[in-house]
Order: sequence, then structure tokens, then C-alpha cells
Amino acid sequence: MSESETFDIVIIGAGIIGVATAYYLQKNNPDKKILLLDRNLAAGQANTAMSAAAVRNMFASSTNQLLTDSSVKFIDHVQNDIGYELLFEKCGYLWLLSDSQFHDPSVQMWMERMKASGIHYKVYNKEELKEMMPGLNVDFSNSEEAELMNLKEVSYGLYGGDCGVLDPTRYVEYYLDEFKKMSSVKPRYGVNVEKLILEADPKLELPGEPFVWQEKKVVGVRTNKGDVRAECVVLATGAWANELLDPIGMDSKTKCKKRQLFVVHGDNQGLKQLLRTKGFNEMEMCPFTILPSAGVYFRPQMQEEGFWIGCGDKLGRAYKYIQTDEDYVPESSYYENSMFPVLSAYYPDFSSTRPVNSWAGGYCYSPDAIPFVYYENGVLVANGASGSGIMKADAMARIADALYRGLPEAELFGGKSIPSEALSIKKRKVEIESVVI
Amino acid sequence: MSESETFDIVIIGAGIIGVATAYYLQKNNPDKKILLLDRNLAAGQANTAMSAAAVRNMFASSTNQLLTDSSVKFIDHVQNDIGYELLFEKCGYLWLLSDSQFHDPSVQMWMERMKASGIHYKVYNKEELKEMMPGLNVDFSNSEEAELMNLKEVSYGLYGGDCGVLDPTRYVEYYLDEFKKMSSVKPRYGVNVEKLILEADPKLELPGEPFVWQEKKVVGVRTNKGDVRAECVVLATGAWANELLDPIGMDSKTKCKKRQLFVVHGDNQGLKQLLRTKGFNEMEMCPFTILPSAGVYFRPQMQEEGFWIGCGDKLGRAYKYIQTDEDYVPESSYYENSMFPVLSAYYPDFSSTRPVNSWAGGYCYSPDAIPFVYYENGVLVANGASGSGIMKADAMARIADALYRGLPEAELFGGKSIPSEALSIKKRKVEIESVVI
Repeated sequence: MSESETFDIVIIGAGIIGVATAYYLQKNNPDKKILLLDRNLAAGQANTAMSAAAVRNMFASSTNQLLTDSSVKFIDHVQNDIGYELLFEKCGYLWLLSDSQFHDPSVQMWMERMKASGIHYKVYNKEELKEMMPGLNVDFSNSEEAELMNLKEVSYGLYGGDCGVLDPTRYVEYYLDEFKKMSSVKPRYGVNVEKLILEADPKLELPGEPFVWQEKKVVGVRTNKGDVRAECVVLATGAWANELLDPIGMDSKTKCKKRQLFVVHGDNQGLKQLLRTKGFNEMEMCPFTILPSAGVYFRPQMQEEGFWIGCGDKLGRAYKYIQTDEDYVPESSYYENSMFPVLSAYYPDFSSTRPVNSWAGGYCYSPDAIPFVYYENGVLVANGASGSGIMKADAMARIADALYRGLPEAELFGGKSIPSEALSIKKRKVEIESVVI
Repeated sequence: MSESETFDIVIIGAGIIGVATAYYLQKNNPDKKILLLDRNLAAGQANTAMSAAAVRNMFASSTNQLLTDSSVKFIDHVQNDIGYELLFEKCGYLWLLSDSQFHDPSVQMWMERMKASGIHYKVYNKEELKEMMPGLNVDFSNSEEAELMNLKEVSYGLYGGDCGVLDPTRYVEYYLDEFKKMSSVKPRYGVNVEKLILEADPKLELPGEPFVWQEKKVVGVRTNKGDVRAECVVLATGAWANELLDPIGMDSKTKCKKRQLFVVHGDNQGLKQLLRTKGFNEMEMCPFTILPSAGVYFRPQMQEEGFWIGCGDKLGRAYKYIQTDEDYVPESSYYENSMFPVLSAYYPDFSSTRPVNSWAGGYCYSPDAIPFVYYENGVLVANGASGSGIMKADAMARIADALYRGLPEAELFGGKSIPSEALSIKKRKVEIESVVI
């Protein structure tokens, strides 16, 4: 890379948001020279690869419903119409809920809003659940341990059949392949963006510019391989947005926490049966299941005959403003002392197994659990997916492209549209999301 | 300090918010043992002392109007009814506006909302301003420099006469003296709070607690002088909230920038005349004046016959998530290249003077420029005053006390009240503030 190359658009980050944005920008702006950068040695290797890679349209806010329902339908379209294998399996999402959780106004409103938006779900009662999942423990009466651990008894299951799991790397490759077919510029890996270059507009060539009385604009990026200038800089860095936006005085409004996943193989009869749970879906496989307590969940992984087990960390897990390498190290004691006791109380078949693998990643929170997409000061930011980047990527990328083209509305897959500035900071118009894992 | 003392309430931070909160908590909970801590060697020595120490009720959001109008009236009450000298001078605030700024819908709405709330203001036209302030340059026609610098010509002045300036140290001392009269516990200085102590509730005495399945609560603070336990920990740390809240996984939602003030003496005839501007107020002194461009403002300081000159930093000034010592060093080049050219274009009398003193502090932004006051997990947070802590302190402290006592409403000075949870994160009910300096 020479000292200061120039492109029309430079995209920082080749995670799922970055590659999807590259694809739509190139598709709709075929003459533009678009450079895709990532500091890793391939696309989709950072938090995209670290996620649970599950997708759902079961949200409570109409904004997230729109973003995810259209994006998940696009995923279905890629696999089943286009024929690009994403290992997308519609195993469904199953929320196990206690009686009081189920009757809580927030859950009732969630169901009402899904009904109003045409999002399919089904409610199962305790007896039905017990029949479909014989290994599920629905009776905590007289259990001192359950009381001590604040475990809530399962009374209902809320199931959404249009949700599922997929292979994130394949999904990244789909967009990337399509982008590369159209683009004249090869993506570059191992390129670390050190800062955004903010310049006075117009530049007066005075030392110390820009001053407070000047207009300012981001005109490119400084990398470990030299400067790259572009009319538009796309920030698709997920958990790392603050490192680049803070120094120029833009507030990403996002903040991160470490999240961990542990792999357990289905190596006993009960777990094998759980993995092949019948009744919920056509594939006869276990849904992505969220327990009523402590934020513990598990996801089936059929290719390795096992489960990925995670937990939505709340009070007690540090917010890390800037993610460092230590945040990417999983903690075996966390599985052992925090997740395992909860998991094996609800599904005792897990009690005889231990993780065979684990990893950790950065979960990027936005204040309302709705992503940000905005174009300000020369920077087009697509960020803050709040743990659901894969299931929102297609919609976010289409919105980013609409902003780039100055369109008032972005057309989403399936024909619905959304105002291009609905996810911006300045003209934000969203409902706060309440169903966050 | 012994290894682990116990109090009912420990307050971290003896800035204006901390001392005001200490005062109301002690007044309304006379039997409670309240310990006030600060890492400096006296109260009010950090960002309270670094501020421009100006107070206004001229806000656009009804929330900030309520908070500041009642707090500024309380300041007036302390000085004029109680007779405690705060050097509070009602010099007024004067926004100098261009024609297009004045007619902007946001400014028109601001004025309408002030009218609706009974907040006094007056509009001056260019000729009136020029007569009262002969040194003000209202004609930038044919000025290439003004065009280059994006300077907007002054067409209107928006003046609020119930605003003014005061001595922040005296105001801190007022609350502190009153608190000390009631309290059985002496405030402690030079005590640095290193972390909030988060514990499982109830504690099971297991190694590695708290686990995800346990309830948790902040039960005290770890300081450089030992642990202090308390039923309620008040966080009044302003710009330093993230250092304490992040590690336990609470998001303060605030972020900081460096702000600087430069002192210029009125050492020429024009500046002497400006300092004693007639017509705006009874004291015949210059109002706190905000220029139409680049966020530059000045504040009269009569005791030293001079002005404090500041600037509202925007794009180009880094957000610092955690404030460090370097953020408290003023930059002479910033005055010289950024503020001075703007200031002397509008008031050429400033062009022959240079700063005799300067300092810098941390400006703590909340997302809507409305403060936060909430009581969660054992922590009572009063934070995010967004550059206007002094003018909101009295109301914020009364709200904090109401939350502590579990009251649904907080009574503010002057008889108005506000729902105690209006400034919380979870039940926030505020309008976004648009008039931020």
C-alpha cells in the first residue's frame, strides 16, 4: 500500500456488518471504488465468529422486528432461493418462562406486538413442554438449592418457529463473494486502522488545524500500512467503535461487555435425545433455548452433535469501554460456578458433561438495544447491534447504503421500508427494545 | 480509618452535587450516620471549582427549566434571605444570534417554552445591542476573515435577567457548613475510592461469589484508607462515574470532554467599558455572553476586573471516557488559535490582551443533556449534569434524598415538585435539551 491512496469509500471492519454494507454499496454504486479493510487475516474472524450465530425475529420493538424479520427472510432467501448453503436451520427459539414471567405486562406486550406485526409464535404449557422435553425439570418444589439460586419454575414456553441458527462464516462469505464479483478493489487484511483523519473543510494549510471555528470532516484513515483517503469512511467495527470515534469527539453511545460460549457434546442418552427434540420443528431438533433464570441459554450445534452454552451477563460483569485481548479469554470458573449449576438444575442431563471448547467475544450494547446507522462528518457508522448483528446485518447494510445515496427511505428485503435516518443519533425514532438476551 | 467501618450512607465526592446531597439527606434523615468522602484535600476543589460558575434557567427542556429555575431561586434565597454571601450576581445571560439562528425553529421553540414556563427573557435587536455594547462588532460585510472563519453576524440578543454568576467555593461551603452542623460524622478528605464493593445478597460465603444466579448489591466502598460499608452508597463523582460503575457492570451513560477557561483582565478602556455594560441589569455589568459562532463565550469576573473566556468544544475535541491528569492542563495554543480569533472578531478590544491565568476541567455529558439521579443496586447516582451541575445541584440533591426515602415525588425549592424517578435510567421521562453550551 502506497503512502496515501484514494478511494471513494473505505470500509473499516469485515465482520458481518462490514461485508453486507460493502455488498449493497457496491451493488448500488457500481462506479465507486470501495476498499474493505480488516485487521484480522480474513473476513468475519472477530466478534461475528464469536457469536452464538442464532437469528430471531422475536423482538418487542417494531424497529427490531422490522430489521430482523427482513434480514432473517433474506438469510432464508440466500439459502433456499439462491442456493448458497449457510447451514441455516430453523430450529426456532424457545423462551422457558415462569408463571409470573409469562404474565408480566412486558411479556404480554411483547406477544401482542409480535401478533400485530405478523411474527409467528406459539405458547406451550408445562405439560406439553415436559412431554416434548422429558429431560426438562419443571418441578422445583421442595428444592432448597433452587430457592437459594433464585431459580424460577418453568410454567410456559414461548416458541418462534421462524428463528434459527446458521454458520456465520458462510454468511460472511456470501456477501464477500458477491462484493468481490463486482468490486475492482481487493479487500485488504492485516490492516489496522489507527485513527480517523479529521481535517478542516476547507483546509487553510495552517499549523494546528482544525480550529474550533472551522468546519471539519473525516477524510480518511491512518493505518499501520499508510494513509487511505476516501470521500466516505464506513465504520463497521462493532465493539471497537469508541477507539476510533472518541479521539475525534464523536460519541458512539455504545459500550461493551465480554460474553462467553462453552461447547458441550451430547455424549449421554438424555442430551442426545434433547438435541433431537421432536415436536417444535420439522428438522426434529432442539430449539435455541433460554432458561427462565440467570440469563443462561443453549443453542444446538448439529454438525458437532452438541450445544453451545451462553449467558447474558448483567450486574457484576464489567463494562469494558474499549475491548482488549484479555476480554477474549473464556473463564472455566464462570462455566463451572455460574452457568453450570443453573443449566443442570433445569436439564440434569448436562450435569455429567464438561465443556470441550470455549471462546469469548465482545457484546456491543446500544442504549435502547436498537442499532445505530448514521452518516455524519464524513463517517458512515453502522454499529451497536446489541448482540444481534448477524440477524440485523442485511437491514443495517441496506440502510447504510440508502444514507450514502441520500435516499430518505431504505428498502428492506421483502418489500418493507424504513426511514433512512430512523437509526441515527440525531433523528432517532425507535422503540426501546425489551427482549434482550 | 479502621479496616471496615460502617455507616448508613457514604457519599463519594464533595463537589457541589455531593455536598448538596449530604445536606438534604442529613436534614431529612437526622438519625442516619452519613460519611462524606473526597479524594481532594477539601470540598469543591475538582470540577466544581473548574467550572465557569454561571447559573441560568434559560433551558429549552421543561426538565432542565424546572431543575435550574428552582435551584437558581434557592441560590438567590441563600444569599438574599438567609444572608450567606455567595457572590451571586444577576448579570444575566446574553446569547448573541445571527438572523438565521434567531429564526431557527429550535430557537423559536426555546423562547416559546420559556414563555410557557414563566422564565423571563428579553430580545434585543442589533441597534440596541450596538448602543449598549459599543465595542461589539456587528458588521462582518466585506470581511474575508469572517467568511473564512464561518463567523455569523450578530442580529439579535436573547437575554435572561434571572441568570448570573457566583463563587462556587462559597456555594459548596454553604451546604457543607449546614451539613456539618447536623452530622455526627466528620467529612474525610484525601480518601480515594478505588472500587465499589458488590456482594451477593444474601452472601453464601462461597469462593468466587457473586455468581450470575445470585442477587447482588453494592454494600460499600474500598478506599486507599480501608473499606467503608454502608446501606446506601451515593455516587456524586461527576466526570469519574465510569471508573466506579463500569467494573460492576452499571452503565453511567455519561462521557467527558476537557473544557478550558482563560482569564483576561480588563486592562484597556474598551474592556473596562464592556465589563460595566449598562442597560442589561441593575448592577450595570456585562452579562455572561455567548457568541454566535464556534461556541466561544465570556463571563465577567468583577472581583478581579476581568473575564473568563471559554468555548463549547464539539467535533475535534476528544471524548475521554475516563479523565486523567493530562485532561486538566489548559493549552495556550487553543486560546491563541481557536478562541482568540473568534473573540477578537466580535469584540476587537480583546485583541490587545492575553490570558493571565487558565485552567481546565472535565465536562460530563449525558445523552440528553439532562442529569441522572437514580437508586439501583444499593448505589444512589447523581451524575451527568452536562456542564451545569452548580445550577442543578439543589434540585438533584432533593431528588436524591426523595429516592433514598422512597418518596414518589421530590419537592423542589419554590414549591414545585418532580417525580423522583424522572431522572432515572429505567423510568426516565425527560425532553431532550437543545440549549447546551
